[in-house]
Amino acid sequence: MTKPAIEIKLSKSKKQKPLAEQLEFGKVFTDHMFLADYLEGEGWSNHRIVPYEPLMLDPAATIFHYGQTVFEGMKAYLDKDGSVRLFRPEENMRRMNQSGERLCMPQFDVENALDALKQLIITDREWIPATEGTSLYIRPFMIATEPYLGVAPSKKYIFVIILSPVGSYYKEGIHPVKILVENEYVRAVAGGTGMAKTAGNYASGLRAQEIADRKGYSQVLWLDGVERKYIEEVGSMNVFFKINGEVITPALNGSILDGITRKSIIQLLNHWNVPVTERKISMEEIRSAQQEGTLEEAFGTGTAAVISPIGEFNWSDEKLVVNSGETGELSKKLYETLTGIQKGDLEDPFGWTFEVPDPAIV
Amino acid sequence: MTKPAIEIKLSKSKKQKPLAEQLEFGKVFTDHMFLADYLEGEGWSNHRIVPYEPLMLDPAATIFHYGQTVFEGMKAYLDKDGSVRLFRPEENMRRMNQSGERLCMPQFDVENALDALKQLIITDREWIPATEGTSLYIRPFMIATEPYLGVAPSKKYIFVIILSPVGSYYKEGIHPVKILVENEYVRAVAGGTGMAKTAGNYASGLRAQEIADRKGYSQVLWLDGVERKYIEEVGSMNVFFKINGEVITPALNGSILDGITRKSIIQLLNHWNVPVTERKISMEEIRSAQQEGTLEEAFGTGTAAVISPIGEFNWSDEKLVVNSGETGELSKKLYETLTGIQKGDLEDPFGWTFEVPDPAIV
Ligand SMILES: Cc1ncc(COP(=O)(O)O)c(C=O)c1O
Ligand SMILES: Cc1ncc(COP(=O)(O)O)c(C=O)c1O
Repeated sequence: MTKPAIEIKLSKSKKQKPLAEQLEFGKVFTDHMFLADYLEGEGWSNHRIVPYEPLMLDPAATIFHYGQTVFEGMKAYLDKDGSVRLFRPEENMRRMNQSGERLCMPQFDVENALDALKQLIITDREWIPATEGTSLYIRPFMIATEPYLGVAPSKKYIFVIILSPVGSYYKEGIHPVKILVENEYVRAVAGGTGMAKTAGNYASGLRAQEIADRKGYSQVLWLDGVERKYIEEVGSMNVFFKINGEVITPALNGSILDGITRKSIIQLLNHWNVPVTERKISMEEIRSAQQEGTLEEAFGTGTAAVISPIGEFNWSDEKLVVNSGETGELSKKLYETLTGIQKGDLEDPFGWTFEVPDPAIV
Repeated sequence: MTKPAIEIKLSKSKKQKPLAEQLEFGKVFTDHMFLADYLEGEGWSNHRIVPYEPLMLDPAATIFHYGQTVFEGMKAYLDKDGSVRLFRPEENMRRMNQSGERLCMPQFDVENALDALKQLIITDREWIPATEGTSLYIRPFMIATEPYLGVAPSKKYIFVIILSPVGSYYKEGIHPVKILVENEYVRAVAGGTGMAKTAGNYASGLRAQEIADRKGYSQVLWLDGVERKYIEEVGSMNVFFKINGEVITPALNGSILDGITRKSIIQLLNHWNVPVTERKISMEEIRSAQQEGTLEEAFGTGTAAVISPIGEFNWSDEKLVVNSGETGELSKKLYETLTGIQKGDLEDPFGWTFEVPDPAIV
C-alpha cells in the first residue's frame, strides 16, 4: 500500500497562544487540524492539514442521531533537548481501530495515523508548552457523517486530529482524591460498548459524576452492571489496589477500557518484580482489606493524570480511608517513573517513546 | 413566560421534491429547518426557521466526543381534507425532556417546541406527501456544542428540527418479520441510558443488527443485560405478545424506551376490554407458550412501522414460529385502528390528534 500524501494548507493568521501558567485542559486549540474522508467502497482519501475551523455537517449526519464515533487521547511533551516525545501513540491508534470495530466503523491504518500526527505536530510545533507539567494534548476522533436517518452504519466518515496545549494536572503537587462508589448508575455492561472509547459511554456517566461533584467527591467508582459488586473503573480511569504487597487491577472483561497507562503499569510492575494480578475484585474485598489494615494503596490511571492516588472511598455512606489519605510510595514511584519516561528525563527500557524530529534540526 | 418569537428566513431556491413512489426513509430533507441556541445561565434564544443547511460546529464540540444528544421521531399525515395531522407530538416533546434529564441536558419548553414544529410544518407544507402510506417524518434533536474536551455537561446546546418526506413502511402490505434473539450483545442495562432516546443506545446496537442482517433476520430481540433472560425490545421497537388471550408487554424498567405507540396500544386494549399486562416476561416463557400452542401473536411497535408483526423467533438456533408466520387478527386490528386515527380516517376518542391548520384556509 502506498502512503497517502498529506496536503497542507497553512492558516493565514496565527492565533495568540495562552500563557503557560494560564493553561487549562482542552479549552484552547492550535492553528491547524488533520482531516481525512472515508466513503464506503472507496476507502480513505483527501488526507490534509488545514486551519483549525468548524466542521460543516449535514443536520441528518449519523453522528448527531446514532452516535457512531470513537476517539483517543494522548499527550506530547517537549523534552529538555527540544525534541517532541509521544508515549506509545501506536497503542492509541490500534485501540481506536478496536473501538471502531465494535461500532461498525472503518479502520484507519495505524502507520498513516502516526504519519498524520507527526506532520500535524511539526506544523503546530510552537504550540507545545515547555514549562513543568504542561503538554500538548492530542485528540484523534472519527465520526459518521452520512445524512441518513435509518439506524444503520454510516457509509461516510471523517477522521480528525486536533491539538490542545494543556496545563499541569497537578498544579499543587500530586494529591489523593475522594471517590464515591456508584450504586445506582452503571457506566457499561458486558455485551455493551464499555471496552470502546466511544461517546455514549461518557454521556451516560455524566449524571453520576454530577451527583458525586455535589457531594464533594471528585470521581465515581463504577461497579459492574450485572451484580453491582465488582469494581470496573474510576471516573475515566482504570483502577489499581495494593493489598498486602500485591497489586490488583480489574481484569479486562469487555466492559472496561484497555488503558495504555494500565498496560504500562503492569509492565513496569513486572519489571520491578512487584506481584501484580488482573482479576475480578469486589468492593467487599476492598472493605475487608481496609478493615484489616492490608489496603495499602489505591490509585486511578489514565493519560490525563497518569496516576491519581485515592485517599478515600465512600461506599453507601461508609467511608474507607486509604493510607491515611496520603499518596502511597508505589503510587509516587509509578508516577515519577512514567512521567520521567514520558518527558525523556528517565531512560526508556521498553521502547515506549515515539520521537517527532524537529525539522529545523534534521 | 412569554413565547419566543420565531424568526423566519426563507430559502431562496426550492429543492426538487422526489416522486411519492420513490420515497424511502430519511434520505431526503425539506427546504427548511428549525433551530434554537442554548447557553448556560441565559437559556434558549434565537428561535428561527432557516434554509436546510449544514451545521457548523467546532471540532471540539461535546457532541463529537462525549455524545450528549437526544432525539425524537414522529410523523405528520395529510388527511383527506388537506389538514396536517400529528400523533401525540406533546408526548414526544415531553419524552425528549426526560431523555435530556438523564444526559444532563437542558429542558426545552414543550409548548415552544410544538409551536416551532407547527411553524416549520406550515413553512414546508408542500413537502408532505399525499399518497397512501407516505408521511412527513419529523426529527427533533438536541446536541451539545461547547468546544471543550473535559468530560462534563456542555454549557452550550442547539435544538434542531428537520423534516423528511418518507415512503410507506409496508410497500407490499403488512407482513411478519423474522427476529433473531440476541444472546451476546446488550442494548442497555438498568442504571444505564436505555430509557432515553440518545445516540449511544443506537450506536451500541449496530453490531448485533449487522449480524442479524447477515443471517437473514430483520431485527434483533434484546434481552436484559443482567440475567439475559427477560425480553426488553425488538430492534428500535417495543414488543408485545398475545398468550392465551392476554396481551403482555415488558414493563418499563429503566432500560426500555417508554414508546408512544406502546402507550397508545395499552390504552386502546383497555378501551376494547382486551386484558393487557405490563410485566417481566422471559424468553423461556415465550418458548413454553409457543410449544403449548398458546403464543397467539407477537409484534413490535414504534412510530416507523406502527405495528410490525413477528412471524418467527430464532433463539440459539431454535426456531419458534408464531401464528404460522401470518399476521394475527389483533395485530391487524391495532394497525388499522392506529393508522386510521393517525390519518384522520377513523374517529379519535382519545384526543391523540394534533392538527396543524392550513394557513391558506384559516
Ligand atoms: C473510560 C476510560 N478508562 C480508562 C482510561 C485510561 O486509558 P489510558 O491509560 O489509555 O489513557 C480512559 C482514558 O483516558 C478512559 O476514558
Ligand atoms: C429503542 C426504541 N424503542 C422503542 C421505540 C418506539 O417508540 P415510539 O412508539 O414512541 O416510536 C423507539 C422509537 O421509535 C425506539 O427507538
